[in-house]
Amino acid sequence: MKKINGGVTTPLGWMAAGVHCGIKRERLDLALIYSERPTMGAVTYTQNRMRAAPVEYMVARENNDIRAFVVNSGNANAITGQQGLEDARAMAELTAKALDLDPSEIGVSSTGVIGRYLPMDKISAGITKAAGELARGRKADHRAAQAILTTDKVIKEAAIQLKLKDGTTVTVAGMAKGSGMISPSMKVQHATTLSFITTDAVLTRPPEERWQEAIDKSFNVINVDGDQSTNDISAFMANGAAGGPPVDDDTQFWNAVTKVAQSLAKQVVTDGEGATKLIELKVTGAKDHADARRAGRWIISSSLVKTAVFGADPNFGRVLAALGNSGAAFNIDRVRLTIGTGGSTISLFERGRPQLAPCSEGEVQARKLLSQKRIVMTLDLGVGKGQAEAWGCDLSYEYVKINAEYTT
Amino acid sequence: MKKINGGVTTPLGWMAAGVHCGIKRERLDLALIYSERPTMGAVTYTQNRMRAAPVEYMVARENNDIRAFVVNSGNANAITGQQGLEDARAMAELTAKALDLDPSEIGVSSTGVIGRYLPMDKISAGITKAAGELARGRKADHRAAQAILTTDKVIKEAAIQLKLKDGTTVTVAGMAKGSGMISPSMKVQHATTLSFITTDAVLTRPPEERWQEAIDKSFNVINVDGDQSTNDISAFMANGAAGGPPVDDDTQFWNAVTKVAQSLAKQVVTDGEGATKLIELKVTGAKDHADARRAGRWIISSSLVKTAVFGADPNFGRVLAALGNSGAAFNIDRVRLTIGTGGSTISLFERGRPQLAPCSEGEVQARKLLSQKRIVMTLDLGVGKGQAEAWGCDLSYEYVKINAEYTT
Repeated sequence: MKKINGGVTTPLGWMAAGVHCGIKRERLDLALIYSERPTMGAVTYTQNRMRAAPVEYMVARENNDIRAFVVNSGNANAITGQQGLEDARAMAELTAKALDLDPSEIGVSSTGVIGRYLPMDKISAGITKAAGELARGRKADHRAAQAILTTDKVIKEAAIQLKLKDGTTVTVAGMAKGSGMISPSMKVQHATTLSFITTDAVLTRPPEERWQEAIDKSFNVINVDGDQSTNDISAFMANGAAGGPPVDDDTQFWNAVTKVAQSLAKQVVTDGEGATKLIELKVTGAKDHADARRAGRWIISSSLVKTAVFGADPNFGRVLAALGNSGAAFNIDRVRLTIGTGGSTISLFERGRPQLAPCSEGEVQARKLLSQKRIVMTLDLGVGKGQAEAWGCDLSYEYVKINAEYTT
Repeated sequence: MKKINGGVTTPLGWMAAGVHCGIKRERLDLALIYSERPTMGAVTYTQNRMRAAPVEYMVARENNDIRAFVVNSGNANAITGQQGLEDARAMAELTAKALDLDPSEIGVSSTGVIGRYLPMDKISAGITKAAGELARGRKADHRAAQAILTTDKVIKEAAIQLKLKDGTTVTVAGMAKGSGMISPSMKVQHATTLSFITTDAVLTRPPEERWQEAIDKSFNVINVDGDQSTNDISAFMANGAAGGPPVDDDTQFWNAVTKVAQSLAKQVVTDGEGATKLIELKVTGAKDHADARRAGRWIISSSLVKTAVFGADPNFGRVLAALGNSGAAFNIDRVRLTIGTGGSTISLFERGRPQLAPCSEGEVQARKLLSQKRIVMTLDLGVGKGQAEAWGCDLSYEYVKINAEYTT
């Protein structure tokens, strides 16, 4: 299994395009992903009850075997009522017509400002244009990955190649977007930011369960601002073009899918609105895994923890106060909180006591660690064997600026 | 019933003091409230499982009839283990000795930075000093109200006088502090920021239920940053010095208590860290009151809603997205969101549709309303008769600054 430089068209039989249709002033705003062959897959959606029209449309249709996905950015088609639903359906129908497919094989997704109707004339022209520009290769990957962005600063891609037992090489690749309104829910039929994972491996049955496991270890552990979107969607699509044995129960294959999803999720949180630092929190010693996840999510979502990290302040009290609010079980005499990894690990709190005196050498070191781009924290709750990761980012002036000054 | 210019010593038989004992560099940091007579009352505490030492001490002691409260600021005595518990007990014992009371009659509270031991020599000298300076009147009120502040910019006081049926005049007054780490919990034995309400009315039995009702309509509807403190405490203390008939079941009296608590709660949220605007959200048409409270708290806590208000952006989509995340029931075709009051009310969303076109005259008006210091929003969920209020504040650059640049 090896990471490669690739995107959604790296697996065999996949094509993509990204065009400017005019929702945004200048940037690309409509993406198309297309498989030359029929696919099998799984799609997960937001748990927000205020679901956007394309999500409503997809959920009602109940087909997870998506051969082409059309995605626009700049307009979320959310809270747009009956008109929005008709527009989502029209997007599927226009795409089906352009690609000579059935509308049920088309996935539809939108992201951008909430509460405005889609400019369907522009979308329609954009779909025709994108269908004409479908291509393979890194340029097509990049244009598609670009066309789904909103306040994101960079595109997010990941790809892994692996050899199956019979020697067949298969590829798993993906693209994602997401910067604000990121707080995916833990429930089963849920989702995240937008993410699209393609592969040329062979599946023989719907992969819902395996896909959910991958999501639970990737997009479900990230949090930017605690606001779960109306539009989240994560799609996994396998077209079997590489041949070889089915991967339904191939652990190595699903590890690769998980790794691609994890890479994309970390890229999303690193590009979180205004983020200057990635926070990787590992919770150990919890009563069970669910309790570990609960503690991790509360801590990573706390505005006080996030601003402390932004300010490089080793304020362990805010982390423990957030733990107290999470409802997770802990034994304060056995709780241990460290930052850093390996030889440079610094203990902030253990055996019921703060470990760093104000203005001590240790505190200076801790501030140095907290000034880096990647902050690793480990919190042992001291009561059991439950573990979980939670990834977040700091809360900066820039977050306020992005969200106060722009309508997003 | 009339509002008066008063503080904790305005009711008969109450005295107070605020001194500088040296926890903070210059500002007052130790307050004492004292009743000349025995009291009856109720105390509520934080639901955070990581409770500060003074809270642990008070809860274990189980006496709600507090005749004197000692409060220090600058140090929360939280996450300080056995030593912290002993220090809290010592604070009670020193205060009891200075006032010739029993330690069980003393309330203890601390607020400030988490995870540092109290400087007990300074605290001890401060208690002696405060006991010697106990006095009545506005100067004493102000010094006590000042001494409990942390990142607060202003003191918070409120007072109401009312005539009981027999003509007796009673007074209810209070002081509070709170700026960050404000997200009081809804549960029964819970609390808030620090708040202390005194009265000279006569009680004949413990007022737990009435006090909880007052808290549920005041401190329990506010939110600054979603982080519930380790130290929250709300105390209600009645010494009966005014005489007259017992007020245990006097609705007018409990309305006055509620109004004092509401005034203090609004003052806390208006002085929220970095807050430039007070948001008063009224949720109506909910399935029940609990659902209305749930929706209100989610919306008022959303970073995206808070930054939109800071930016005066009539971004109704963020409000509805937060509603979707709250889990509260709604009928999107009947949901109605307005801002403003009376003649200047503007509808942002109703009958399933956005009401303001981008750049329209209405949008300009909405931005004007959102530029004021007090933002009134009304959200009808369109499914029932449940109602609730939620009060919050915007999220500004200043919030980030306060929490990133200072150890609090």
